[in-house]
Amino acid sequence: MDQRTGVGLVGTGFMGKCHALAFQAVRATFPDTLRVRLRRLVDVDPAVTEAFARAFDFERWSTRFEDLIEDPDVLIVAITTPNFLHQEMALAAMAVGKHVYCEKPLALDAAGARTMAEAAERAGVKTLVGYNYLRSPAVGLAREVIRSGGIGDVIHFRGAHFEDFLADPAAPRTWRLTRATAGGGALGDMGSHVVSLARHLVGGIEEVMGATQTVIAERPDPREPGRRLPVDVDDQAQALLRFENGASGTLETSWLAQGRKMGLTFEITGTRGAILFDQERMNEIRLFQGGGPRRLHGFKTILMGPDHPHYACFCPAPGHGLGFNDLKTIEVKALLDGIRDGTPIDPDFRAGLEIAQVIEAIQLSAAEGRWVRPDAL
Amino acid sequence: MDQRTGVGLVGTGFMGKCHALAFQAVRATFPDTLRVRLRRLVDVDPAVTEAFARAFDFERWSTRFEDLIEDPDVLIVAITTPNFLHQEMALAAMAVGKHVYCEKPLALDAAGARTMAEAAERAGVKTLVGYNYLRSPAVGLAREVIRSGGIGDVIHFRGAHFEDFLADPAAPRTWRLTRATAGGGALGDMGSHVVSLARHLVGGIEEVMGATQTVIAERPDPREPGRRLPVDVDDQAQALLRFENGASGTLETSWLAQGRKMGLTFEITGTRGAILFDQERMNEIRLFQGGGPRRLHGFKTILMGPDHPHYACFCPAPGHGLGFNDLKTIEVKALLDGIRDGTPIDPDFRAGLEIAQVIEAIQLSAAEGRWVRPDAL
Amino acid sequence: MDQRTGVGLVGTGFMGKCHALAFQAVRATFPDTLRVRLRRLVDVDPAVTEAFARAFDFERWSTRFEDLIEDPDVLIVAITTPNFLHQEMALAAMAVGKHVYCEKPLALDAAGARTMAEAAERAGVKTLVGYNYLRSPAVGLAREVIRSGGIGDVIHFRGAHFEDFLADPAAPRTWRLTRATAGGGALGDMGSHVVSLARHLVGGIEEVMGATQTVIAERPDPREPGRRLPVDVDDQAQALLRFENGASGTLETSWLAQGRKMGLTFEITGTRGAILFDQERMNEIRLFQGGGPRRLHGFKTILMGPDHPHYACFCPAPGHGLGFNDLKTIEVKALLDGIRDGTPIDPDFRAGLEIAQVIEAIQLSAAEGRWVRPDAL
Amino acid sequence: MDQRTGVGLVGTGFMGKCHALAFQAVRATFPDTLRVRLRRLVDVDPAVTEAFARAFDFERWSTRFEDLIEDPDVLIVAITTPNFLHQEMALAAMAVGKHVYCEKPLALDAAGARTMAEAAERAGVKTLVGYNYLRSPAVGLAREVIRSGGIGDVIHFRGAHFEDFLADPAAPRTWRLTRATAGGGALGDMGSHVVSLARHLVGGIEEVMGATQTVIAERPDPREPGRRLPVDVDDQAQALLRFENGASGTLETSWLAQGRKMGLTFEITGTRGAILFDQERMNEIRLFQGGGPRRLHGFKTILMGPDHPHYACFCPAPGHGLGFNDLKTIEVKALLDGIRDGTPIDPDFRAGLEIAQVIEAIQLSAAEGRWVRPDAL
Repeated sequence: MDQRTGVGLVGTGFMGKCHALAFQAVRATFPDTLRVRLRRLVDVDPAVTEAFARAFDFERWSTRFEDLIEDPDVLIVAITTPNFLHQEMALAAMAVGKHVYCEKPLALDAAGARTMAEAAERAGVKTLVGYNYLRSPAVGLAREVIRSGGIGDVIHFRGAHFEDFLADPAAPRTWRLTRATAGGGALGDMGSHVVSLARHLVGGIEEVMGATQTVIAERPDPREPGRRLPVDVDDQAQALLRFENGASGTLETSWLAQGRKMGLTFEITGTRGAILFDQERMNEIRLFQGGGPRRLHGFKTILMGPDHPHYACFCPAPGHGLGFNDLKTIEVKALLDGIRDGTPIDPDFRAGLEIAQVIEAIQLSAAEGRWVRPDAL
Repeated sequence: MDQRTGVGLVGTGFMGKCHALAFQAVRATFPDTLRVRLRRLVDVDPAVTEAFARAFDFERWSTRFEDLIEDPDVLIVAITTPNFLHQEMALAAMAVGKHVYCEKPLALDAAGARTMAEAAERAGVKTLVGYNYLRSPAVGLAREVIRSGGIGDVIHFRGAHFEDFLADPAAPRTWRLTRATAGGGALGDMGSHVVSLARHLVGGIEEVMGATQTVIAERPDPREPGRRLPVDVDDQAQALLRFENGASGTLETSWLAQGRKMGLTFEITGTRGAILFDQERMNEIRLFQGGGPRRLHGFKTILMGPDHPHYACFCPAPGHGLGFNDLKTIEVKALLDGIRDGTPIDPDFRAGLEIAQVIEAIQLSAAEGRWVRPDAL
Repeated sequence: MDQRTGVGLVGTGFMGKCHALAFQAVRATFPDTLRVRLRRLVDVDPAVTEAFARAFDFERWSTRFEDLIEDPDVLIVAITTPNFLHQEMALAAMAVGKHVYCEKPLALDAAGARTMAEAAERAGVKTLVGYNYLRSPAVGLAREVIRSGGIGDVIHFRGAHFEDFLADPAAPRTWRLTRATAGGGALGDMGSHVVSLARHLVGGIEEVMGATQTVIAERPDPREPGRRLPVDVDDQAQALLRFENGASGTLETSWLAQGRKMGLTFEITGTRGAILFDQERMNEIRLFQGGGPRRLHGFKTILMGPDHPHYACFCPAPGHGLGFNDLKTIEVKALLDGIRDGTPIDPDFRAGLEIAQVIEAIQLSAAEGRWVRPDAL
Repeated sequence: MDQRTGVGLVGTGFMGKCHALAFQAVRATFPDTLRVRLRRLVDVDPAVTEAFARAFDFERWSTRFEDLIEDPDVLIVAITTPNFLHQEMALAAMAVGKHVYCEKPLALDAAGARTMAEAAERAGVKTLVGYNYLRSPAVGLAREVIRSGGIGDVIHFRGAHFEDFLADPAAPRTWRLTRATAGGGALGDMGSHVVSLARHLVGGIEEVMGATQTVIAERPDPREPGRRLPVDVDDQAQALLRFENGASGTLETSWLAQGRKMGLTFEITGTRGAILFDQERMNEIRLFQGGGPRRLHGFKTILMGPDHPHYACFCPAPGHGLGFNDLKTIEVKALLDGIRDGTPIDPDFRAGLEIAQVIEAIQLSAAEGRWVRPDAL
């Protein structure tokens, strides 16, 4: 009998490929983790699905999501579909006791995320939300430095996620650009990454004040380019944050930010130091620590290497660098270890809910012009 | 008879020296401008004042501010005293028809700034507020690029001014750290530079939402270090901005920002490009412009050179770089040209008032948790 | 019958793992390429070999190199052993008609490399030498820009490879530190990467003038740390280069370069532009092109994305970044495509010989203090 | 009687303006130094000379160099003319006991420089050669760190000076482009800056191996643009260096280096650390020091501030930055202090000779293809 843990994947797009590559690479990269088999693949287009399945050696494939649910050999369901499908699929999988690895954002709103988190807890299954930027050695080092007091008490967080993939007004109105299918705009899609990092590195967010803008109010219908459809989600958002531990913060995001390709950045200031990070240079971090002669003070640019979390599993030599896909491999390892050991996984659906609450609080604050507490949603 | 314009300077500190150096260098750097003579110097300590006056060849010096006011050969009064003295000194100077060059922030609050702006307009004298970071070739180029449509319509401004000169809790509670003498904290002192840039590059600010924090609530008494005195101004501040032209923005500032020395930065995003700037690298600007083949897209790092505003007056060769003190020389040239030609100077006291209104609006918003319009103050 | 191409790998160290991961990932990343099976693994330690084989799902493993040679299901032999073993192993594999994928440098000297290149040509097998830094999208873009005249005629090449992995004098004298086992020092190990890039981007090298230094003349015996053994290879090397096309160049390398982790850099200047690259930031390239208004001149920092060679096969979104291991996946694709199509592969053993000649010419020049032509060796 | 030291300046170009500004600013910046008066100005064009003299308040001006020599109130002669005039002017000034401040390079060749150095020593006057890049706080810090053992023993120096001001083949053949008037090409003009830094930071150069190229062999006659004149100096040069203390090194220079504006850079590697510098970012230095936990290793970017040499005399606040002209002010202070105190000045004409010998040794080596000792010239 095959002792390997069966994985069912739904979705063959950008994230589908990332998941499949990661499940394939995880065992060799992290020899101690669970062994997996790519058991089943599901997507809507039969030809695409078959080609993808063959490339990755999936054992079976089809266009029916239920096939995953009904397959007793699938223990883990990995969901990489558009946002509006996450909730229904995850609930179906958890209802039959499968572990769920779901792309972010978790649901269309906090209520949906709550339903999912509560279902996961009732079902007693393991869950993981794909906030993959938490996985880099650089973020891991930042967390270690902060936790060990290396920059003193955190007093300010400045986070942003800027990209420009929708800066062209001729980009069609796909599912990402309506509230009904995406739940939100840049704020939910990208701003949620900032929230995931803020939470991971600084702690819980107590109160927010937000502003959102829809700059390009209409875009071409993807099926009929001559026709224009309204956009009802934000293109840009900004927020002031108050953390539970007293730190202040800001969050900004935009998918119209010309020139920025993967501009997820943070600057964390503590009472004795500071840390700067830019995902476009994901293999380095900038660290300032006071002390010592002032004439030698400066931000250190630390290149990732085998002394940093997980790096050595990819490469024994420093400075060689991980890539984006490697982050997914680390994420899959976290999932598999949690399943194997029955230990908590972060961020699980409960954490995904907390992130969703912050996003929704910013949306509400933007609408009402007042400070809003995420935990009230 | 000496045809040169007489300058009276009050203050021999950091800014006093900058002013004196700039008045000394301006003629050789900008041969067409007014010639000046350093007529009188005033400060409180007689020995310091004399040494400073001798170093700069001031004709006369004393410890009595009135001496400046009463000297008919002083046409320009340059004020570099602590904030709480600006208003009284400027009003006295303008009352006898002298032009006033005043360090920022203009006054302790918007009301004070209004009094000064109105007095200037009544007196018909020229005024200039020392927001020197507006003077760099890089900021000049940014403005030209934006005005000529080089990045399309501005949709977002992200500005910050971070330093760490008060990060040490053992730093004494000087005049900068009480509202009565400074008018505000980091927000007024440094955040006002961000506002000056936002206004210069993007336009008027219609509405703000702010937050402020006093992180180090007590500091040693400068006269009795064993004793601790309360701090009633902000150490950090953040704000959301709405510009008159519809752009959104953020502003952040802190004098506790470990590792940042002159961290005045902005990122301006337009519909067709973006500009990034960092005062710590004041001789370069980063510019993204769409168009052309996508595989060659990227931010250009443009080094300042003789093709950029005022640079050629300092040096005919690109990349050699100006320094901070050179910005003051350019500022003094703006003052002298305005006086010579009777043309508007920017930022004058009216502009200083508008900046003060934005700062006060952020303070009020932080206190009341609501959006505030600067023009309502 | 299994239609997949059988791979035999010798070596389970740093490069062994890279090869295995790459063979595993190549099919999903590049669906059109040959399918491979990890048929056999060989290394000296049985336990390590078994664990490695199980992690990567090798079908068979042993400690006898001949097992690879004798296995009719092995079509490709991948050699990742210390340098002194390359020649013997490759010759044995080619003698029975197997394709060979060999780590760099090819042999201990130019004579050995010539033997290998000639054997490959006689055997009619495909060969590839693992100069993996040629594979990055950034280097690919640099080559495209240069070939298409984007920087005019190349007039200067400045290349270096600096690391610090042997900067500690307490590092033991391993096989890398004797001429008998390594063939050379930093020059052969790392300088050869610079030569591979120079050749790839600028063209053939006609003449060299070199200098080499052994800074740490003795190091601890790895088996008996109290004892010290002499080092007879270079720790640092520098060379002046003359290219066939008339360009001048320099090459520098060191494994004592404190602070540099993967400091493989080049600066290529042409008559109309320039390109700068640093492997520590392998996902970006800096490009200067003249033309247009001089006030907007500057180096562009181009982030790699799907418009650049091979990037899209890993990720559809720009700026996300590849990692070091991904370069090996691209390298394996080049090998498999060449085998499938019977087309030339670059760099093959003939190219490996040419690189070895340049290295040996620098060594000879350093010894004799005169310019040396690589093609005379 | 005027107690101030009289300065006579010859030349009103780029360097003439720098000198004049520096003499004007030095007293206020460095209050303890000698006071100076701008006594006389000389240049060939009467109108230009007068305008310049008026802008800087020179007391007298003319177009006759002898006027400087004959003026008993001129104690310091500052020479900023084209290279071929340095020797004759300096000799004339020293012959009548005047101190000489001469722009670099000192003479057309080592023989000329020797004549000047010996004349200075015979006359007992003070001399200074204008290698202004030695004056920056960053270079000062680098020197302090190296001298105090902060990077261990220096084992490698990598220096370059790249600019692109002659990259355009249409740039006319001015005095810089003939050996008779300039003494050399990029090597003498810019490479000499690299030598000055190498000497200042690492020590004496024992032997060199060089290569030079004239890439653009003809350029338009400045007086008759349709006509083309030959260029007999190098456009690019490279050299290998051996220092007296055993360190190795490289030097590169070019005035065809597209995109580089003030690209004077060095990388100095020691046994325990390394220092990187780029004059285009003259207000920062990058320092690596081993020790401490390896996971926090990295290059520190140190921003110049009042803890670094001379910075505090310009500005009390860190990170504000000096500009190029400020370097000349520091240089003039060194000259005046040396005159006041009768102490050695570095680099004086003797040092200028040593730099000239290195340059000439590289030229000779390039011609003869062999290592050459500078001290043999």
